[in-house]
Amino acid sequence: MAEEALLQNKQVLFKGYIDGVPKETDMELKVDSHIALKPPPQGSSAILVKNLYLSCDPYMRGRMRDFHGSYIPPFLPAQALEGFGVSKVIHSDNPNYKPGDFITGFTGWEEYSLIQRTEQLRKIHPDDAIPLSFHVGLLGMPGFTAYAGFYEVSTPSKGEYVFVSAASGAVGQLVGQLAKLHGCYVVGSAGSKEKVDLLKNKLGFDEAFNYKEELDLNAALQRYFPQGIDIYFDNVGGDMLDAALLNMRIHGRIAVCGMVSQQSLSKPIGIYNLFNLITKRIKMQGFLQSDYLHLYPRFLEDVSSYYKQGKIVYIEDMNEGLESAPAAFVGLFHGKNVGKQVIRVAHE
Amino acid sequence: MAEEALLQNKQVLFKGYIDGVPKETDMELKVDSHIALKPPPQGSSAILVKNLYLSCDPYMRGRMRDFHGSYIPPFLPAQALEGFGVSKVIHSDNPNYKPGDFITGFTGWEEYSLIQRTEQLRKIHPDDAIPLSFHVGLLGMPGFTAYAGFYEVSTPSKGEYVFVSAASGAVGQLVGQLAKLHGCYVVGSAGSKEKVDLLKNKLGFDEAFNYKEELDLNAALQRYFPQGIDIYFDNVGGDMLDAALLNMRIHGRIAVCGMVSQQSLSKPIGIYNLFNLITKRIKMQGFLQSDYLHLYPRFLEDVSSYYKQGKIVYIEDMNEGLESAPAAFVGLFHGKNVGKQVIRVAHE
Repeated sequence: MAEEALLQNKQVLFKGYIDGVPKETDMELKVDSHIALKPPPQGSSAILVKNLYLSCDPYMRGRMRDFHGSYIPPFLPAQALEGFGVSKVIHSDNPNYKPGDFITGFTGWEEYSLIQRTEQLRKIHPDDAIPLSFHVGLLGMPGFTAYAGFYEVSTPSKGEYVFVSAASGAVGQLVGQLAKLHGCYVVGSAGSKEKVDLLKNKLGFDEAFNYKEELDLNAALQRYFPQGIDIYFDNVGGDMLDAALLNMRIHGRIAVCGMVSQQSLSKPIGIYNLFNLITKRIKMQGFLQSDYLHLYPRFLEDVSSYYKQGKIVYIEDMNEGLESAPAAFVGLFHGKNVGKQVIRVAHE
Repeated sequence: MAEEALLQNKQVLFKGYIDGVPKETDMELKVDSHIALKPPPQGSSAILVKNLYLSCDPYMRGRMRDFHGSYIPPFLPAQALEGFGVSKVIHSDNPNYKPGDFITGFTGWEEYSLIQRTEQLRKIHPDDAIPLSFHVGLLGMPGFTAYAGFYEVSTPSKGEYVFVSAASGAVGQLVGQLAKLHGCYVVGSAGSKEKVDLLKNKLGFDEAFNYKEELDLNAALQRYFPQGIDIYFDNVGGDMLDAALLNMRIHGRIAVCGMVSQQSLSKPIGIYNLFNLITKRIKMQGFLQSDYLHLYPRFLEDVSSYYKQGKIVYIEDMNEGLESAPAAFVGLFHGKNVGKQVIRVAHE
């Protein structure tokens, strides 16, 4: 048997289930892993890829709990974390992919991955006008979340008043821009002056505010929406959701997309203003982009086209090197990222 | 000028705005009011009616606050309360109504009322098979709330698992029966053994339980819905809503109809389990029957027909005499009523 050439394959391992806010020490950089760059076993339909970009997303926190009743299974301790990525095919036993292809979908937090479950991968047709990393952001799960959540869940009309929380984040920044293109009035909240400036000056929001500088979120929303809110695109939950409930208009809609403020709390804070659901006849709907995949082709076409025409922009927070991934992921829960958090594992 | 014959017109007056749970002393029986039984002024379009039945409904609590931002204005202190009723026309200046007609709509908590705003009244076509009082219950606002909330807001499918709280009440008892007719599995909660027996033995619910005997509402719902809840028709809010959120199935719907447990609290209790809205992709929608009035004719036809065919029943809690109205209304907030609470002011 020929000796196989083994290559170093750095990995970020998941150490074990956690209870609170993720810490860097919940993950471990393993430098002494190796992989043989050889074709996957015949009949496996697997592909061997080189990972180029990895996505840091708040939902991954949910996979750090030992809870099997959710829409996505927990991470396995002592294994590499898993997440969305952009990768280049090195070897393939799958007729749909050949070496040199670029793909996006679930991959490991490591330099090279053997991907066995290929059904949900998507082949990328490289386009000089669109950075490859956008396929985990603007054109990936976060972008599609914004698209499905805005058009399908929020059912917007021209002229409506839209509020977006975590508005400069991976999802929020696109929601706001789609809402502006739709003819809505859009206000965003974020957690720093830098982000507020981006919202107003680069992302085209009508107004934006730093929630950390507001003593009374209800008063802040009254100030920015004296006529009330038609659509609240909720990325944070908690106190902001409670304040928004007080400021909704009749027949308002709340698209419940994420609750990053609550995601790490074993006991979330209470919501007190649900009575407004009745008096204002509000529809509050949780959603996952995965329920709307039939719209993905239209989304790709629409949003790529908006981007190429300069109608929208997309802000990434790019960290260099797999080593930077644990800190970048942890930073999501402290609002450190400015825009979509991505890790560049290797250059194309 | 001829002397007018004045008739005693007992009234239940609203004394003034309140903060907590309604008490009998928040209302006052006034026995020394009088009314002249004469035709309303020409051109007024008003009608003078004799009130036969008055409806006690939890939403009326909202009109006891000095708050003008709701969907219905507050009561006026020192005036008779207002609510749904069934009345007989004595005199009319309105071409749509003639003496002897029966009508239903907003009237005063008094023996005789001069009704100026006649636009939202509905003429009743007496039908020996349907008690007149049903026009403030089964065929009135509560029945229509059940109908619109079940079919339009809950969007049920045959075979789905339906949970109804306050299930023997004016709304809940019809929701459960409509759900059974639709081919759903239906469980109701109520606050006494008597009500639980009615749900199981008279109203045809598959199961029912007394929430006051459950130490852990989540455990109770797990027991009755091991496979989870598709539709929660929420009449109570509070802890039961929080427990239901934990037990919803994927793509479940929560029709938020009333929050009788929270209605009298100036600071409602917190809801902690909204994260389930996302993971289970739940639609939670508040509604008012008044948004669905275009369906009223179909509702009347459907539900009258079900009743006449013996496919549904309707339980009323009938109190005799205007004097009994304050205690009956207050009783709603302590679960004293068994079925729809009605006051018989006069015999037909």
